Amino acid sequence: MRIVEFIPTPDQYVWTFGGAEPVMEVAPGTALRLWTEDAFAGRVTSSSDKPSQVLNPKELNPQTGPFYVTGAQPGDTLALHVVSLEPARDWAASTTIPLFGALTGTDRTAGLQAPLPELTWIYRVDAAASTATFTAHESDFSLEVPLAPMLGTVGVAPALREVRTTLVPDYFGGNMDTPELRAGTTIYLGVNVDGAVFSVGDGHYRQGEGETCGTALEGAMNVTLIVDLIKGHAPAWPRLEHDDALLTVGSARPLEDAWRCSQVEMVRWLQELYGLGPMDAYQLCSQLCLSPLANVVDVNYSAVTKIHKALLPQSLPYAGMHATMRAAAASLV
Amino acid sequence: MRIVEFIPTPDQYVWTFGGAEPVMEVAPGTALRLWTEDAFAGRVTSSSDKPSQVLNPKELNPQTGPFYVTGAQPGDTLALHVVSLEPARDWAASTTIPLFGALTGTDRTAGLQAPLPELTWIYRVDAAASTATFTAHESDFSLEVPLAPMLGTVGVAPALREVRTTLVPDYFGGNMDTPELRAGTTIYLGVNVDGAVFSVGDGHYRQGEGETCGTALEGAMNVTLIVDLIKGHAPAWPRLEHDDALLTVGSARPLEDAWRCSQVEMVRWLQELYGLGPMDAYQLCSQLCLSPLANVVDVNYSAVTKIHKALLPQSLPYAGMHATMRAAAASLV
Amino acid sequence: MRIVEFIPTPDQYVWTFGGAEPVMEVAPGTALRLWTEDAFAGRVTSSSDKPSQVLNPKELNPQTGPFYVTGAQPGDTLALHVVSLEPARDWAASTTIPLFGALTGTDRTAGLQAPLPELTWIYRVDAAASTATFTAHESDFSLEVPLAPMLGTVGVAPALREVRTTLVPDYFGGNMDTPELRAGTTIYLGVNVDGAVFSVGDGHYRQGEGETCGTALEGAMNVTLIVDLIKGHAPAWPRLEHDDALLTVGSARPLEDAWRCSQVEMVRWLQELYGLGPMDAYQLCSQLCLSPLANVVDVNYSAVTKIHKALLPQSLPYAGMHATMRAAAASLV
Amino acid sequence: MRIVEFIPTPDQYVWTFGGAEPVMEVAPGTALRLWTEDAFAGRVTSSSDKPSQVLNPKELNPQTGPFYVTGAQPGDTLALHVVSLEPARDWAASTTIPLFGALTGTDRTAGLQAPLPELTWIYRVDAAASTATFTAHESDFSLEVPLAPMLGTVGVAPALREVRTTLVPDYFGGNMDTPELRAGTTIYLGVNVDGAVFSVGDGHYRQGEGETCGTALEGAMNVTLIVDLIKGHAPAWPRLEHDDALLTVGSARPLEDAWRCSQVEMVRWLQELYGLGPMDAYQLCSQLCLSPLANVVDVNYSAVTKIHKALLPQSLPYAGMHATMRAAAASLV
Repeated sequence: MRIVEFIPTPDQYVWTFGGAEPVMEVAPGTALRLWTEDAFAGRVTSSSDKPSQVLNPKELNPQTGPFYVTGAQPGDTLALHVVSLEPARDWAASTTIPLFGALTGTDRTAGLQAPLPELTWIYRVDAAASTATFTAHESDFSLEVPLAPMLGTVGVAPALREVRTTLVPDYFGGNMDTPELRAGTTIYLGVNVDGAVFSVGDGHYRQGEGETCGTALEGAMNVTLIVDLIKGHAPAWPRLEHDDALLTVGSARPLEDAWRCSQVEMVRWLQELYGLGPMDAYQLCSQLCLSPLANVVDVNYSAVTKIHKALLPQSLPYAGMHATMRAAAASLV
Repeated sequence: MRIVEFIPTPDQYVWTFGGAEPVMEVAPGTALRLWTEDAFAGRVTSSSDKPSQVLNPKELNPQTGPFYVTGAQPGDTLALHVVSLEPARDWAASTTIPLFGALTGTDRTAGLQAPLPELTWIYRVDAAASTATFTAHESDFSLEVPLAPMLGTVGVAPALREVRTTLVPDYFGGNMDTPELRAGTTIYLGVNVDGAVFSVGDGHYRQGEGETCGTALEGAMNVTLIVDLIKGHAPAWPRLEHDDALLTVGSARPLEDAWRCSQVEMVRWLQELYGLGPMDAYQLCSQLCLSPLANVVDVNYSAVTKIHKALLPQSLPYAGMHATMRAAAASLV
Repeated sequence: MRIVEFIPTPDQYVWTFGGAEPVMEVAPGTALRLWTEDAFAGRVTSSSDKPSQVLNPKELNPQTGPFYVTGAQPGDTLALHVVSLEPARDWAASTTIPLFGALTGTDRTAGLQAPLPELTWIYRVDAAASTATFTAHESDFSLEVPLAPMLGTVGVAPALREVRTTLVPDYFGGNMDTPELRAGTTIYLGVNVDGAVFSVGDGHYRQGEGETCGTALEGAMNVTLIVDLIKGHAPAWPRLEHDDALLTVGSARPLEDAWRCSQVEMVRWLQELYGLGPMDAYQLCSQLCLSPLANVVDVNYSAVTKIHKALLPQSLPYAGMHATMRAAAASLV
Repeated sequence: MRIVEFIPTPDQYVWTFGGAEPVMEVAPGTALRLWTEDAFAGRVTSSSDKPSQVLNPKELNPQTGPFYVTGAQPGDTLALHVVSLEPARDWAASTTIPLFGALTGTDRTAGLQAPLPELTWIYRVDAAASTATFTAHESDFSLEVPLAPMLGTVGVAPALREVRTTLVPDYFGGNMDTPELRAGTTIYLGVNVDGAVFSVGDGHYRQGEGETCGTALEGAMNVTLIVDLIKGHAPAWPRLEHDDALLTVGSARPLEDAWRCSQVEMVRWLQELYGLGPMDAYQLCSQLCLSPLANVVDVNYSAVTKIHKALLPQSLPYAGMHATMRAAAASLV
């Protein structure tokens, strides 16, 4: 397997899906060893940092990439397998940003109340124990929390000539912020433009489902991926596969629409895998699915539909692509 | 422990929270052995049944109860511990009801499209194997699915003199339809009227998160509960406790508001348990919580916030009420 | 025409739709001369009043009634014609109530921000000029605003054995808070229980569309109504008729669903009036309708669809009921 | 006044806000005489046309422009005065497009129901009478409806390096689809990039508020505009001014958020114009505003807040820019 390493310099950070020149072309079957800067572009470093003072609102969620995938055409399916996610720093930062987050008014859920306090929490990482330490601001409480690394943002260039900020999750992936996108996951994304033109970023050392306050344990990440391509079969919404589960991700507002998108995508997937009619697939999904939220804070909200494979007859989505990539990954760890 | 058995006759079914005469008064510490009819009031029995023909829209979701709890006053907290949930039939039914469900227009998400087909699926139960069999309508597919019994509906009388249909979930509990309400769960509900006046019903032999098509594996249930009372401390939204997790349930529309209610309730609970300030509790909840949806089909949608106790410092919510009830339950199984 | 006068004493105020004993039975064709207390139950009287201190949360939006209409049965249509609305006081009050209103978090759009300031504005009424005076708290600005009296709340008893607080708007009317419900309006409401059991209240001397801050120029009102009954033909959602317009009101959350309900009701009305097919009525409504919001603050939000009669071929909804009542009203003013 | 005429050839149509090369630079004070193609790019011409067959989903809502405004910088305010809108054809087309519109499931409000029928209505225009004729498909009903020309789409290039399809309304204007944007209106848009880079399109000969079925009386339009620039003072959301009203437009989902954005923008505007504190401006807006919906079908929904000037003390927004442009317009008609 060809292995390519790429660590962007700050001037190479990319702030959009679509619209940026690919940093390189990669053939299907290539492994990528990447490094991603944190969502703050590294600007939050101390528990006394005020986001409104240190952040540059035009430089959030820097992406590593984009990568042009040889042979990818609109209607194809990009498969990315996350081999490993390793925190690249011994600390992570989380913040509350004025008028951003789920338990506050925002620029869209607009109101007249004063913003919540701006605070930064720095989590010290104990790599050996695989934990990070939460330290309270308002009392002397502290707590070790387990690391659970994930990628907040994986996306391809959108359709309709659009260029979207990397803060957005949508049908093209993007800033979905689901803890289900972790080492061992294969993600399937519909290709909208020649070369797919994908990028990754926004590593989280840990995140709750919904990303309530708007930020996770944000940290730089060492990311190993395998890239592959399936001709045709583009899903309408991102699909994920674990060793033990099938998942779909919808992104929209209000939240029920995000979830409906993920549900309809799962109904379609069950129809494809088992030759079910739509009403039977609807019934089966209704009884088998888990519905763990992803984010309720971004430009679109993201919701996940998940079914454990153990509940379903055996099947090989995309001709066993996940198992194949999983096997290939073994040589990389 | 006093043990009371009650099996309602059909004329004793109750269709509202509030407004119904209690069937009996029970003292805190009493165990109840109950039977609940299914949400269809037993009217769906065959895979050829059309809901619009066999259902009575005024008689859905019959409740067993209500029970008047000695000493309960507004502002108190009713604690109900679910000792066991045992399917009372060897089959369950699920249906699609015209213009009801998450992947169709409804009376509120009003539109002009033709309704989806009305179908009934009868699931045969294998009690020994603890499974039920899904049989497709549109192909010859069938599948054994594990039973996972839960109660769709547990509620107290509402405030403000209201009487609500048992189809509604809200701050008073009601038709929350969360798979998290199962044997082993303690639910804490704020008391709004003297005696709390609670009832239970809507047994599901299994349900996916969201109850997409609008109905689960609906079936009559044998329900064993222990009833207790905590003076004061009424939560704003239902709280649940498992041996291994704390949970809150919010119910509202749109779905993000249901989830926000559950999140704010969890933030408050963390503040109470650990003396945290609100911003620290917000941060902690953001990184630790799971967010499994309950229903996206009822009059209000219901969303759950859940934190595993293993992630938190040890604590004894409500002075250890759950552990106490759990111990008492051992003598009943 | 029989004319009945009724001024409730405070102990006769009613706080629910459904669940209250009718104060009297009235035959179709009766005129009612009523007085309604303001939504604060008269408890806000000074610009220094803090709503959280003076209001009783269990006694808001008092209704005058309910009235049992002779012969009204489920499925019938209650017609109420508003003959006149006259401010019964020389002042009105508007307030901001903590965590209530459209530009603040609420109990449902739950959050952690501090509530907005609690303020009361007292508007002095100049009956001769038909104006009221706004006086700013934060500067020396003042402004005469024209009176535009309306009824916030008109409703019948709900179906499904429910009893709802008078704060709720829904299919049964209730707290719709639309400025379109004014002198000269006929409202058509579907009857859910024998006698219809309707009541009125919540007079506003003036209100913007949406009732942004949650309260209007709240004031006691002298209300003259004519009551009539149409057998059958119950609309799914309230319909209103002016001399120059047809209107429908939907109430739900999110706001688009409230509006969708009003739109589908108007599409149905156009089909009935002109024998149109559903797609043609959909097209016509799309090009002709106005969509003035009613409230975006109550338990459900309310949205109006309105079409000017001048745009449509002549028609006589409900066999000319509005014209008939309008003519009868002439003798009452 | 310099007057520039520009009629794009089909290869000059523009499909995005941002990302397109300006067709020319115009100095503030310039008048533009433009022609805009209809939203279907002229592909719907007959009542037997099926949108799914004749439309190109990548070529919808063609814009005329974009225009680079000399001296415009981020933070400035672009003022465009609509001098006249004249139908450029003697017919217009409206259609129902599968899974698009307010009374059907969509790609976001995803579901499993069959789409509504695809239909096209061709309206014949009588320019002398200023009417168009609706002809029913499902019966022999027909109706003359008054013309009320408006522009569905006026927008500047977005911020954050984004490029958006012209189907989107947002803070940068775009596909707002409000009937309030008509001859005599001045629109104020915040500038996000050098030159503002604005374009116009999507002429409607008439549209109801909400654009229920998703399309209006779509037709090519002769558009006369005057372009001007205000240094600084960029509003957060589009502001409109008529001779007799001030208006703000918010665009978001769910619909209440679109409306909240417009309301907060109006509260800010009242504060600026009258030196009011925020709570007083909130109160005043609550009692004075109209809330006519714009669209409930596009990528974001759009809602308008409107206050008649006659209700307010006299003021000269933007130093009387509207009056100045209105006077200049007189020489162009």
